[in-house]
Amino acid sequence: MGISITKETKRLKTMLLHWSIAHSSFYNMLKVPEHQVAGHLAVDGKLGPLVDDSGRFYKPLQGDGRGNKELAFYESFSSDTRVPDHIRKYFPVCYGSQLLEASNGSGLLHHLVLQDIVSSHRNPSIMDVKIGSRTWYPEASDNYIQKCLEKDRRTTTVSLGFRIAGLQLYEGKESGYWRPGRKEVQSFTVYNVRSILRRFVSSNSSIGNENSDCSFAPSIYGGSAGILEQLLELKAWFEDQTIYHFHSCSLLIFFDKESVSKGSASVPEIKLIDFAHVVEGKGVIDHNFLGGLCSLIKFVSEVLSDSKESSIKDRVESEKPGICTDNGNCQ
Amino acid sequence: MGISITKETKRLKTMLLHWSIAHSSFYNMLKVPEHQVAGHLAVDGKLGPLVDDSGRFYKPLQGDGRGNKELAFYESFSSDTRVPDHIRKYFPVCYGSQLLEASNGSGLLHHLVLQDIVSSHRNPSIMDVKIGSRTWYPEASDNYIQKCLEKDRRTTTVSLGFRIAGLQLYEGKESGYWRPGRKEVQSFTVYNVRSILRRFVSSNSSIGNENSDCSFAPSIYGGSAGILEQLLELKAWFEDQTIYHFHSCSLLIFFDKESVSKGSASVPEIKLIDFAHVVEGKGVIDHNFLGGLCSLIKFVSEVLSDSKESSIKDRVESEKPGICTDNGNCQ
Repeated sequence: MGISITKETKRLKTMLLHWSIAHSSFYNMLKVPEHQVAGHLAVDGKLGPLVDDSGRFYKPLQGDGRGNKELAFYESFSSDTRVPDHIRKYFPVCYGSQLLEASNGSGLLHHLVLQDIVSSHRNPSIMDVKIGSRTWYPEASDNYIQKCLEKDRRTTTVSLGFRIAGLQLYEGKESGYWRPGRKEVQSFTVYNVRSILRRFVSSNSSIGNENSDCSFAPSIYGGSAGILEQLLELKAWFEDQTIYHFHSCSLLIFFDKESVSKGSASVPEIKLIDFAHVVEGKGVIDHNFLGGLCSLIKFVSEVLSDSKESSIKDRVESEKPGICTDNGNCQ
Repeated sequence: MGISITKETKRLKTMLLHWSIAHSSFYNMLKVPEHQVAGHLAVDGKLGPLVDDSGRFYKPLQGDGRGNKELAFYESFSSDTRVPDHIRKYFPVCYGSQLLEASNGSGLLHHLVLQDIVSSHRNPSIMDVKIGSRTWYPEASDNYIQKCLEKDRRTTTVSLGFRIAGLQLYEGKESGYWRPGRKEVQSFTVYNVRSILRRFVSSNSSIGNENSDCSFAPSIYGGSAGILEQLLELKAWFEDQTIYHFHSCSLLIFFDKESVSKGSASVPEIKLIDFAHVVEGKGVIDHNFLGGLCSLIKFVSEVLSDSKESSIKDRVESEKPGICTDNGNCQ
């Protein structure tokens, strides 16, 4: 049986499309993200996100509907006029979706095309903090809820209202990054989380948790453009917005320690990511996200106020006059 | 075998103690609380709280340890200097515990002696709102967690971050109170909760949900001493306090509609009650309570702003000049 001309044309067209996409990807130099701290990595033949040199992040659409849900969220969000401009900066820009060769070699796959939010940072210290005291949502299946609940109870999600899902701390040219493995991250206790939030803004982070100096806290957590102010701006929106409920969504906190060390102006940033489990708010605030966010804010505030106190103490110590004796002699 | 004198004396002393307590209770006119809207009622031979005429509320100590936990909470709370004075007013005063004849006739039982918080109100409208998107806590048993989780999912606890656990609305001298039964209360949907929060501050609450006029919203929810301001004061504390986690605790919201109708100054009140599941905060804020509280605040704010809008609309309507025709004639 011969192939009809129509079918043959279609086949050739498809081949051409595939070839051109694959070809363009090749020249676009898609690669594994250098600074991905959580989620599936595109290594060892596994499926994961890719980045290019133009500052775009390609996230494969997960096959079980989650990918399409995330794409639908970005589409809805980008056109929603109820979202204020000052809040949009906390979300990555989305450039739609694109067919690309998947990193696991399984062929062409739809990818979300997003802004590569850390691409402008050379040596970013990054924390991926999954917000909320539950990662499941009422509409989910019982199985899914039980699975999430178990993990939420095993990690700090239930106790703290958030959990660290991944991180990298830049420790300097010689030591490079501290990147705890997935198992280590999943076993973080409340104590560990508190230590990491201190270590994240310390100049001596490589020395060990106990001695963290928190010397960058005033410039990274504090100040009018610092992490705390940004978290508070986000909080004010979450106290009011009833459009979306952000389940199992992460807050990425990142900054360039080297720039800060050198005294150059580096603005620390926060960005919300991972929207595969966002559902409609239906007129109710996202109290689950808000509660967790407030808990994180409290932790960050404490590190900041501790660092201020210790810096005042240091100043007082250094300015303290010598001990004066009764006869007026000072030592 | 004869009974020893010591044993006989002890037996007589115990009898005397029992008799005197029972006797004093009798003359103290212990009775079933008139305005209890949730929890076990001391009727039909069941165990429940009692009140007297001096403004005290006697709550039987539950036998499974919960009663002792609640007593321990009150003892710890009352002596905790970290709790600011302006927050103490949101908690009932506790006068310790006392042995009393239980309402189910089972004999003497320890009772918590608390301030009867609604005793000064003649016809209080009351809402018992259980705050938090989960009523269980990490330290509880798996069985307890599953039981709570099921109920939390069945009610508005998970979706709203709070559920109405009971209520009575005073509708006037003729109609008396609207007191939905336990089953009806447990089946309240998000829609019902929104309606009830409107109906709670309406002069025409008996007509039906759809037509609630919310005419008392400005004086009950609004104003510098209104419910909203009180909730915001409580919220500010919960954003900061890391002493206690209030699981399965209720916020009682109440006021005297008759006084408000007559224009007399009646201050609406909120009080936290039910502390059998309070656990130590261990340096973490109660993000579960806080999230639910913020959700309730949003609902109350909406009723208030709707009522303001409709009152402005009414004023504009009444002040609007007639329709003018081209020749300047106004109708």
